[in-house]
Amino acid sequence: MSTYTQCSKEDLRAVKDALDVLNGRWKLQILIALLNGKRRFKEIARDIDGISDRMLSKELKELESNHLVTRVVIDAFPPVVEYTTTSHAKSLHKVIHALKEWGYYHRKEIIG
Amino acid sequence: MSTYTQCSKEDLRAVKDALDVLNGRWKLQILIALLNGKRRFKEIARDIDGISDRMLSKELKELESNHLVTRVVIDAFPPVVEYTTTSHAKSLHKVIHALKEWGYYHRKEIIG
Repeated sequence: MSTYTQCSKEDLRAVKDALDVLNGRWKLQILIALLNGKRRFKEIARDIDGISDRMLSKELKELESNHLVTRVVIDAFPPVVEYTTTSHAKSLHKVIHALKEWGYYHRKEIIG
Repeated sequence: MSTYTQCSKEDLRAVKDALDVLNGRWKLQILIALLNGKRRFKEIARDIDGISDRMLSKELKELESNHLVTRVVIDAFPPVVEYTTTSHAKSLHKVIHALKEWGYYHRKEIIG
Protein backbone atom coordinates (compact mmCIF):
# COMPACT_ATOMS: atom_id res chain seq x y z
CA MET A 1 0.00 0.00 0.00
CA SER A 2 1.63 3.33 -1.05
CA THR A 3 2.75 5.56 1.79
CA TYR A 4 0.57 8.48 2.77
CA THR A 5 1.60 12.04 1.95
CA GLN A 6 1.61 14.49 4.83
CA CYS A 7 0.00 17.75 3.75
CA SER A 8 1.30 21.16 4.78
CA LYS A 9 -0.97 24.22 4.69
CA GLU A 10 0.57 25.11 1.30
CA ASP A 11 -0.02 21.58 0.02
CA LEU A 12 -3.65 21.75 1.17
CA ARG A 13 -4.06 25.10 -0.61
CA ALA A 14 -2.64 23.56 -3.79
CA VAL A 15 -5.15 20.68 -3.61
CA LYS A 16 -7.96 23.22 -3.00
CA ASP A 17 -6.75 25.30 -5.98
CA ALA A 18 -6.90 22.22 -8.21
CA LEU A 19 -10.33 21.20 -6.88
CA ASP A 20 -11.68 24.74 -7.37
CA VAL A 21 -10.55 24.78 -11.01
CA LEU A 22 -11.80 21.27 -11.76
CA ASN A 23 -14.93 21.44 -9.56
CA GLY A 24 -18.14 19.80 -10.52
CA ARG A 25 -18.70 16.70 -12.65
CA TRP A 26 -18.36 18.34 -16.09
CA LYS A 27 -15.01 20.08 -16.49
CA LEU A 28 -12.76 17.03 -16.70
CA GLN A 29 -15.28 15.33 -18.97
CA ILE A 30 -15.17 18.36 -21.31
CA LEU A 31 -11.36 18.32 -21.31
CA ILE A 32 -11.39 14.57 -22.03
CA ALA A 33 -13.90 15.15 -24.86
CA LEU A 34 -11.36 17.63 -26.32
CA LEU A 35 -8.48 15.14 -25.99
CA ASN A 36 -8.78 14.21 -29.65
CA GLY A 37 -8.51 17.75 -31.00
CA LYS A 38 -10.72 20.69 -31.96
CA ARG A 39 -14.44 20.26 -31.44
CA ARG A 40 -17.50 22.40 -32.02
CA PHE A 41 -20.01 23.21 -29.26
CA LYS A 42 -22.64 20.73 -30.46
CA GLU A 43 -20.04 17.97 -30.86
CA ILE A 44 -18.87 18.41 -27.27
CA ALA A 45 -22.47 18.54 -26.02
CA ARG A 46 -23.25 15.28 -27.82
CA ASP A 47 -20.26 13.55 -26.18
CA ILE A 48 -21.22 14.31 -22.60
CA ASP A 49 -24.36 12.63 -21.26
CA GLY A 50 -26.74 14.92 -19.41
CA ILE A 51 -25.03 18.29 -19.88
CA SER A 52 -27.27 21.22 -20.87
CA ASP A 53 -26.12 23.81 -23.44
CA ARG A 54 -26.30 26.46 -20.72
CA MET A 55 -24.04 24.43 -18.40
CA LEU A 56 -21.60 23.59 -21.21
CA SER A 57 -21.33 27.25 -22.13
CA LYS A 58 -20.65 28.25 -18.50
CA GLU A 59 -18.06 25.48 -18.01
CA LEU A 60 -16.25 26.35 -21.27
CA LYS A 61 -16.00 29.99 -20.15
CA GLU A 62 -14.53 28.94 -16.79
CA LEU A 63 -12.07 26.56 -18.50
CA GLU A 64 -11.05 29.42 -20.82
CA SER A 65 -10.48 31.80 -17.88
CA ASN A 66 -8.21 29.13 -16.34
CA HIS A 67 -6.10 28.85 -19.54
CA LEU A 68 -7.26 25.26 -20.15
CA VAL A 69 -9.37 25.81 -23.29
CA THR A 70 -9.14 28.24 -26.20
CA ARG A 71 -12.05 29.34 -28.36
CA VAL A 72 -11.37 29.92 -32.05
CA VAL A 73 -13.87 31.76 -34.28
CA ILE A 74 -13.51 30.77 -37.94
CA ASP A 75 -14.44 33.54 -40.35
CA ALA A 76 -17.09 31.74 -42.39
CA PHE A 77 -20.79 32.38 -43.08
CA PRO A 78 -22.25 31.66 -40.66
CA PRO A 79 -19.14 31.97 -38.41
CA VAL A 80 -17.90 28.69 -36.90
CA VAL A 81 -16.66 28.40 -33.27
CA GLU A 82 -14.25 25.65 -32.31
CA TYR A 83 -12.78 24.76 -28.93
CA THR A 84 -9.43 23.16 -28.23
CA THR A 85 -7.32 22.40 -25.19
CA THR A 86 -4.27 24.53 -24.41
CA SER A 87 -0.74 23.28 -23.72
CA HIS A 88 -1.45 24.08 -20.06
CA ALA A 89 -4.37 21.60 -20.13
CA LYS A 90 -1.91 18.85 -21.10
CA SER A 91 -0.39 19.22 -17.63
CA LEU A 92 -3.61 17.63 -16.32
CA HIS A 93 -2.52 14.32 -17.80
CA LYS A 94 -1.33 12.97 -14.41
CA VAL A 95 -4.53 14.09 -12.62
CA ILE A 96 -6.75 12.43 -15.25
CA HIS A 97 -4.61 9.29 -15.14
CA ALA A 98 -4.69 9.12 -11.31
CA LEU A 99 -8.48 9.64 -11.22
CA LYS A 100 -8.96 7.00 -13.93
CA GLU A 101 -6.81 4.44 -12.09
CA TRP A 102 -8.56 5.13 -8.82
CA GLY A 103 -12.02 4.98 -10.42
CA TYR A 104 -11.31 1.42 -11.64
CA TYR A 105 -9.82 0.48 -8.25
CA HIS A 106 -12.74 1.99 -6.32
CA ARG A 107 -15.36 0.24 -8.47
CA LYS A 108 -13.70 -3.11 -7.64
CA GLU A 109 -13.61 -2.20 -3.92
CA ILE A 110 -17.31 -1.28 -3.84
CA ILE A 111 -18.77 -3.80 -6.31
CA GLY A 112 -16.15 -6.53 -5.65
CA MET B 1 5.23 17.88 -21.97
CA SER B 2 3.76 14.50 -20.99
CA THR B 3 1.87 12.64 -23.70
CA TYR B 4 -1.88 12.81 -23.60
CA THR B 5 -3.91 9.77 -22.62
CA GLN B 6 -6.68 8.71 -24.97
CA CYS B 7 -9.83 7.87 -23.00
CA SER B 8 -12.09 4.94 -23.86
CA LYS B 9 -15.72 4.89 -22.70
CA GLU B 10 -14.64 2.67 -19.77
CA ASP B 11 -11.83 5.09 -18.90
CA LEU B 12 -14.28 8.01 -18.96
CA ARG B 13 -16.65 6.08 -16.68
CA ALA B 14 -13.75 5.41 -14.27
CA VAL B 15 -12.91 9.16 -14.17
CA LYS B 16 -16.61 9.93 -13.60
CA ASP B 17 -16.78 7.33 -10.82
CA ALA B 18 -13.81 8.98 -9.08
CA LEU B 19 -15.26 12.48 -9.55
CA ASP B 20 -18.67 11.36 -8.22
CA VAL B 21 -17.06 9.93 -5.05
CA LEU B 22 -14.77 12.91 -4.49
CA ASN B 23 -17.24 15.59 -5.71
CA GLY B 24 -17.44 18.98 -4.12
CA ARG B 25 -14.73 20.96 -2.36
CA TRP B 26 -14.87 19.24 1.02
CA LYS B 27 -14.29 15.50 0.74
CA LEU B 28 -10.60 15.52 -0.14
CA GLN B 29 -9.99 18.19 2.48
CA ILE B 30 -11.69 15.96 5.10
CA LEU B 31 -9.57 12.98 4.04
CA ILE B 32 -6.43 15.14 4.20
CA ALA B 33 -7.47 16.36 7.69
CA LEU B 34 -7.64 12.68 8.71
CA LEU B 35 -4.18 11.93 7.25
CA ASN B 36 -2.58 12.21 10.67
CA GLY B 37 -4.85 9.70 12.39
CA LYS B 38 -8.12 9.56 14.32
CA ARG B 39 -9.97 12.84 14.80
CA ARG B 40 -13.18 13.87 16.52
CA PHE B 41 -15.93 15.73 14.71
CA LYS B 42 -15.09 19.12 16.24
CA GLU B 43 -11.38 18.65 15.48
CA ILE B 44 -12.09 18.00 11.80
CA ALA B 45 -14.52 20.95 11.66
CA ARG B 46 -11.85 23.23 13.13
CA ASP B 47 -9.32 22.14 10.48
CA ILE B 48 -11.45 22.98 7.46
CA ASP B 49 -12.22 26.65 6.83
CA GLY B 50 -15.85 27.40 6.05
CA ILE B 51 -17.43 23.97 6.49
CA SER B 52 -20.69 23.84 8.46
CA ASP B 53 -21.39 21.02 10.95
CA ARG B 54 -24.34 19.96 8.79
CA MET B 55 -22.14 19.73 5.67
CA LEU B 56 -19.35 17.91 7.55
CA SER B 57 -21.84 15.39 8.88
CA LYS B 58 -23.26 14.76 5.37
CA GLU B 59 -19.79 14.45 3.78
CA LEU B 60 -18.57 12.04 6.50
CA LYS B 61 -21.62 9.82 5.90
CA GLU B 62 -20.93 9.78 2.12
CA LEU B 63 -17.23 9.01 2.72
CA GLU B 64 -18.28 6.19 5.05
CA SER B 65 -20.67 4.72 2.44
CA ASN B 66 -17.74 4.73 -0.03
CA HIS B 67 -15.49 2.79 2.38
CA LEU B 68 -13.12 5.78 2.78
CA VAL B 69 -13.84 6.65 6.43
CA THR B 70 -14.83 4.61 9.47
CA ARG B 71 -16.68 5.94 12.47
CA VAL B 72 -15.74 4.53 15.89
CA VAL B 73 -17.96 5.08 18.94
CA ILE B 74 -15.97 4.86 22.19
CA ASP B 75 -18.00 3.60 25.11
CA ALA B 76 -17.48 6.46 27.54
CA PHE B 77 -19.83 8.87 29.29
CA PRO B 78 -20.72 10.82 27.31
CA PRO B 79 -19.88 8.53 24.36
CA VAL B 80 -17.03 9.73 22.13
CA VAL B 81 -17.10 9.43 18.31
CA GLU B 82 -13.89 9.32 16.33
CA TYR B 83 -13.31 9.18 12.57
CA THR B 84 -10.40 7.57 10.77
CA THR B 85 -9.50 6.80 7.19
CA THR B 86 -9.73 3.23 5.90
CA SER B 87 -7.01 1.29 4.11
CA HIS B 88 -9.02 1.89 0.93
CA ALA B 89 -8.64 5.67 1.45
CA LYS B 90 -4.87 5.23 1.33
CA SER B 91 -5.27 4.30 -2.36
CA LEU B 92 -6.14 7.97 -2.93
CA HIS B 93 -2.52 8.87 -2.31
CA LYS B 94 -1.74 9.23 -6.03
CA VAL B 95 -4.87 11.33 -6.70
CA ILE B 96 -4.06 13.70 -3.82
CA HIS B 97 -0.43 13.89 -4.96
CA ALA B 98 -1.40 14.61 -8.61
CA LEU B 99 -3.91 17.31 -7.56
CA LYS B 100 -1.35 18.86 -5.22
CA GLU B 101 1.35 18.98 -7.92
CA TRP B 102 -1.07 20.41 -10.46
CA GLY B 103 -2.40 22.99 -7.99
CA TYR B 104 1.11 24.39 -7.52
CA TYR B 105 1.75 24.26 -11.31
CA HIS B 106 -1.56 25.94 -12.12
CA ARG B 107 -1.03 28.77 -9.60
CA LYS B 108 2.30 29.55 -11.32
CA GLU B 109 0.61 29.47 -14.76
CA ILE B 110 -2.17 31.84 -13.69
CA ILE B 111 -0.32 34.15 -11.28
CA GLY B 112 3.09 33.77 -13.01
